[in-house]
Amino acid sequence: MSRRAEAPEALIARAREGEARAIGRLISLVEDGSPVLREVMAGLTPYVGNAHVVGLTGSPGVGKSTSTSALVTELRGRDLRVGVLAVDPSSPFSGGALLGDRIRMSEHATDPGVFIRSMGARGHLGGVSRATPQALRVLDAAGLDVILVETVGVGQSEVEIARLADTTVVLLAPGMGDGIQAFKAGILEIGDVFVINKADRDGADSVRRDLRAMISLGDRPEGAWRPPVLKTVATTGEGASEVVDAVDQHRAWAAETGELERRRVRRARDEIEAIALTALRERWGSVGEGAVIDRLAEAVASGSSDSYAAADQLLAD
Amino acid sequence: MSRRAEAPEALIARAREGEARAIGRLISLVEDGSPVLREVMAGLTPYVGNAHVVGLTGSPGVGKSTSTSALVTELRGRDLRVGVLAVDPSSPFSGGALLGDRIRMSEHATDPGVFIRSMGARGHLGGVSRATPQALRVLDAAGLDVILVETVGVGQSEVEIARLADTTVVLLAPGMGDGIQAFKAGILEIGDVFVINKADRDGADSVRRDLRAMISLGDRPEGAWRPPVLKTVATTGEGASEVVDAVDQHRAWAAETGELERRRVRRARDEIEAIALTALRERWGSVGEGAVIDRLAEAVASGSSDSYAAADQLLAD
Repeated sequence: MSRRAEAPEALIARAREGEARAIGRLISLVEDGSPVLREVMAGLTPYVGNAHVVGLTGSPGVGKSTSTSALVTELRGRDLRVGVLAVDPSSPFSGGALLGDRIRMSEHATDPGVFIRSMGARGHLGGVSRATPQALRVLDAAGLDVILVETVGVGQSEVEIARLADTTVVLLAPGMGDGIQAFKAGILEIGDVFVINKADRDGADSVRRDLRAMISLGDRPEGAWRPPVLKTVATTGEGASEVVDAVDQHRAWAAETGELERRRVRRARDEIEAIALTALRERWGSVGEGAVIDRLAEAVASGSSDSYAAADQLLAD
Repeated sequence: MSRRAEAPEALIARAREGEARAIGRLISLVEDGSPVLREVMAGLTPYVGNAHVVGLTGSPGVGKSTSTSALVTELRGRDLRVGVLAVDPSSPFSGGALLGDRIRMSEHATDPGVFIRSMGARGHLGGVSRATPQALRVLDAAGLDVILVETVGVGQSEVEIARLADTTVVLLAPGMGDGIQAFKAGILEIGDVFVINKADRDGADSVRRDLRAMISLGDRPEGAWRPPVLKTVATTGEGASEVVDAVDQHRAWAAETGELERRRVRRARDEIEAIALTALRERWGSVGEGAVIDRLAEAVASGSSDSYAAADQLLAD
């Protein structure tokens, strides 16, 4: 090693003083699945639970990075410290530099009240689901007030991010085949706040009208949250203030009704499960080679056993 | 129930006679995670291992459905029975109708030598990874010679499909920001055969040149497979024959070198693991509500425990 590894305790202390490098180092430990993670997470426990985690998702082309940037500007104007976690599930190998770099180049790169980090969904199992909640925990403990978790809306990533967030903002834009776009990945179910970005373009009002109509189609019990549909022009910052207001209102509603607590329990459940599953896979040898599961797999592949019988044996082991 | 449930044994017998409705019924049992699946899978075991599983992936817009259709035509011309499994990971809720419907509408819909089915990646964990290998097992046991597994190349789905396949065909097209496209999700690592579709368009040769250059950059040991880069015009069927030839050559190479066996063991391993993990999640109560894991999650969310300690308790339970 080219530098001495710093004790988790010292790193946490420095992160809590807002030192970006210490925060970054802790997130690297999370990404690497470091052996000291257990100690890190235990050390962070007393300091978490204050940050508001806002998920930000939408199809490629709706202007996610610009919107993130506009929201950061608005939040900074309200004197809040902001974390941005850009999760790129399409980068299993690289670590997802593309998404993060775009943000890093932005105006906020040198603001000490903003911490920006991109993460790839490196491994398969336990990737996003283990590392993202742990990274959120680091940023939360570091005293950031709002954490924006940005993800490109492909595959199931938007659903995964929504499961992590206290409030989920879904971005759309005019002229992207919006009916299908809106229904496609169940975004109606996951959005707490909808934002039509690029609202200066033709068709913004009709997207808004369609979306509102779809939202009012769903049955909502008394007192349920009714997702607002807002318009923004992220490149100029227009509408960002209304989005932040709506996010605040959603948080207040969620705190009052117990929904915030429910979501945080769910997030903890997903995280616990991901850690447990990762531990099991290590035990089984799925992570490495030449272990219990390989012998069982050979038997199944050769037709001398079936997959359920093999799974039984694995669990009995 | 509106109709009597048929015994797995009888369904399997009918599927082995090539009856499409029985094959479809078995795949529905797979999708639903039916309680009789264990019996179904054990019943299929003697009949599997003959089909050649070909993964077909590529970014939206490269012409996956047309390419699938052209390959089916070519394979049918060689008197092979063909299964098509269209996996749509972007449909966590719907079951992925869009992708499959496009194929169903095609010329092959009424050919009894072709079985077409689309699957969504319904649940989160154990979705694609459990159901897809099981569906492949059904199609394999039904006596299909080649099974094309088509997936839209988003998120990690192409990597997942590559893990399932004996041979993976990666589709590209000119004019799609190809350098980045090729590198983005690590497709260089997963492709056994590369196909530049829409080869009648400008830029096809330069994509091919770039791709070949990238492929020759990687270190390859003596005797390793060198992925060919072919050109097709799927709408006319041009080049489909060369693709099928290349896929055959890859299979022959893989069988001879032991790579085929290795891949099938890996597929079995993934399947066993997915079944075991699904069983564990049910035991923990992650699937329903109000169980062991919920109490642990509440402790973590309230800060009275940390996620690693909770995972330890979960595993000790």
